Amino acid sequence: MTFALNADVLGAIEPPIAESQTWIAGRTFPAEKPLLDLSQAVPSYPPAKELTDHVAERAAHFETAQYSVIRGLPELRQDLASHVAHRYGGSLGPEHVLISAGCNQAFCMAILAIARAGDAVMLPVPYYFNHQMWLEMQGIDPIHLPFRFDRAGVPDPEQARTMLTEKTKAIVLVSPNNPTGAVYPPEVIEQFRDLAAEKGIALILDETYRDFLEDEDGPPHRLFQDEKWGETLIQLYSFSKTFSLTGYRVGSVIAGPKTIDAVTKIMDTIQICTPRISQYAALYGLRHVWPWVAEKRAMLKGRKEALEAAFRSNDLGYELVSAGAYFSYVRHPFEDLTAKQVARKVADEQNILCLPGSFFGPDQERFLRLAFANATAEEMPELAKRLRASLAA
Amino acid sequence: MTFALNADVLGAIEPPIAESQTWIAGRTFPAEKPLLDLSQAVPSYPPAKELTDHVAERAAHFETAQYSVIRGLPELRQDLASHVAHRYGGSLGPEHVLISAGCNQAFCMAILAIARAGDAVMLPVPYYFNHQMWLEMQGIDPIHLPFRFDRAGVPDPEQARTMLTEKTKAIVLVSPNNPTGAVYPPEVIEQFRDLAAEKGIALILDETYRDFLEDEDGPPHRLFQDEKWGETLIQLYSFSKTFSLTGYRVGSVIAGPKTIDAVTKIMDTIQICTPRISQYAALYGLRHVWPWVAEKRAMLKGRKEALEAAFRSNDLGYELVSAGAYFSYVRHPFEDLTAKQVARKVADEQNILCLPGSFFGPDQERFLRLAFANATAEEMPELAKRLRASLAA
Repeated sequence: MTFALNADVLGAIEPPIAESQTWIAGRTFPAEKPLLDLSQAVPSYPPAKELTDHVAERAAHFETAQYSVIRGLPELRQDLASHVAHRYGGSLGPEHVLISAGCNQAFCMAILAIARAGDAVMLPVPYYFNHQMWLEMQGIDPIHLPFRFDRAGVPDPEQARTMLTEKTKAIVLVSPNNPTGAVYPPEVIEQFRDLAAEKGIALILDETYRDFLEDEDGPPHRLFQDEKWGETLIQLYSFSKTFSLTGYRVGSVIAGPKTIDAVTKIMDTIQICTPRISQYAALYGLRHVWPWVAEKRAMLKGRKEALEAAFRSNDLGYELVSAGAYFSYVRHPFEDLTAKQVARKVADEQNILCLPGSFFGPDQERFLRLAFANATAEEMPELAKRLRASLAA
Repeated sequence: MTFALNADVLGAIEPPIAESQTWIAGRTFPAEKPLLDLSQAVPSYPPAKELTDHVAERAAHFETAQYSVIRGLPELRQDLASHVAHRYGGSLGPEHVLISAGCNQAFCMAILAIARAGDAVMLPVPYYFNHQMWLEMQGIDPIHLPFRFDRAGVPDPEQARTMLTEKTKAIVLVSPNNPTGAVYPPEVIEQFRDLAAEKGIALILDETYRDFLEDEDGPPHRLFQDEKWGETLIQLYSFSKTFSLTGYRVGSVIAGPKTIDAVTKIMDTIQICTPRISQYAALYGLRHVWPWVAEKRAMLKGRKEALEAAFRSNDLGYELVSAGAYFSYVRHPFEDLTAKQVARKVADEQNILCLPGSFFGPDQERFLRLAFANATAEEMPELAKRLRASLAA
């Protein structure tokens, strides 16, 4: 007799990326209308050569093949703490930092550190689907804070207040957001922090895409400037997008020391430590590669501006809700079609691959995620032309 | 108001390695009686140079910085399946393999794939403490199958039968065992498999240390030769010890295709994929480094034989219960002392650092784990001499 699999795992939503790939499987695209693949967002450029040269050099050392301390290399934790303190203001030290094997692991550990089966966690819609999957797998109830089209995708703390339950252990925010690209204003993030502090729950803030912000009006938020930040905030980060290191799996958890102690115990249990060679890659990036990052940021900003211009100057029928970092969220014009039907339609007719809003939670049938970072600024008018053509088809 | 941490995480046993380090903190050791550190077992030698040269070469390629498919590089899964089929007999393909970020992660994913809070999992004592920690953190009840001194540390399937409950989802075995070093006979492993199959539960078999076996009497077990193996068996493995790659975090789960599908969903959620550079390291090892592994195996075998000879030829008072791969388990002669008291005594008086059996589960006060792999064959007589001296002190 064979064994049964965990119903919470089998029942969790299926990762949707693979499904969207089947929509174009086996197709070839003509030179005059090539595929515009705006489905996934991963850096389209390799890491800085000096960084991979450094990784190659580190491979020769025995210590690289050995465990690091559980919470990560001391110099990496120190440098990351200093970097964050410098950018955000406030006081942080290595005791507030754990290096994780990517930001998904950071999220899983943060959730496990504060919630167990039967508890609840608030997740704004549209959500990053891995967050939803982990909560389901852990038997934790996701409370879906509704999408606010009227707020350009920025969730509403007052609405959140009305939906929190006794079982709720945390509010999760992602800014800049995946999938919408919305950048949450510092005041809104502070309102969520105040709500979480008032209720004695955690604010988990995933800032994977933060290095694509310009900081023209100051840091992404001012939470670290409150000396009691560690009582409420758990900040998650990934080096993957910033330094084009997705395959290395390296990110971080920043939190109060007691939370870091709990996360360290979890890290010890699930993986001992983040791969050491990946930690060296992150450390080199943090110390040496910011001018390169600035170039990439400027390039993505150019793509975003070209996208916005293309939507502004054309009567597309499609409405740009929000755009930032890698992603944009678009309201499509087909009231009678599901989001997936529209995504398939533009794939079939216009050779545009994007993801339906319904992949990211309930009540998202009118929306599409376009990972604009995958297209060049020069391609944006073509994107607009094809979207307009989809109205007639 | 600050948030509360998960009581299951706070309440889980604390990892004991750090505590043992405090017993010698700040001490210096005389040249004529240096520290014999038999506490932790990690490879004391670097990876093969050709392997790290290969890693350095791979760092230069953009694809190394990109995600692999979730379950791991196809060529690595194919080669590992072929390797296991060749060694164990039986039929395996890449559809049976997922590459994990180390064997601890493999264990965590295997457990999550089949059990949730409120379920139970059988863990023989003494256990590998990370296994106990993960079960506690997940709210899963560990059923402790007692240590069998009379069976030289080999657990008893008939005793297991009497302790299984309706809630039990799996039996976990580790062979060669950590902490005891006991190598479970194939027949015993088969009896556990039969019991698990009869009850419709999983047999999770952690074979992290398998490459230190000589296979003189055939493969470690014959489970893969049963064409229905995937209905019961989940095999876990680590490349860490075999190729001296602990810092790279790379291991595997081998199971039936439906189980691999569930584990793939978990992997996607928690980490997307194992770091790609680590997968290249494992693949190179699997293809090219077996002669180097054979040398290391012979060296460890020499250490084991020297240990056994030292115990045989001396009236130590200490009794060698079992030894294999990296570890030995020893019954100490002090009936009135706890295992920790004895471990501290030999640390203080004899400059031997080892771990008390009580770190590995209940009713282990008479035992010590000696990670003999850390000492050279030439040091074994000295170890025996010091243990004997501890009787008089």
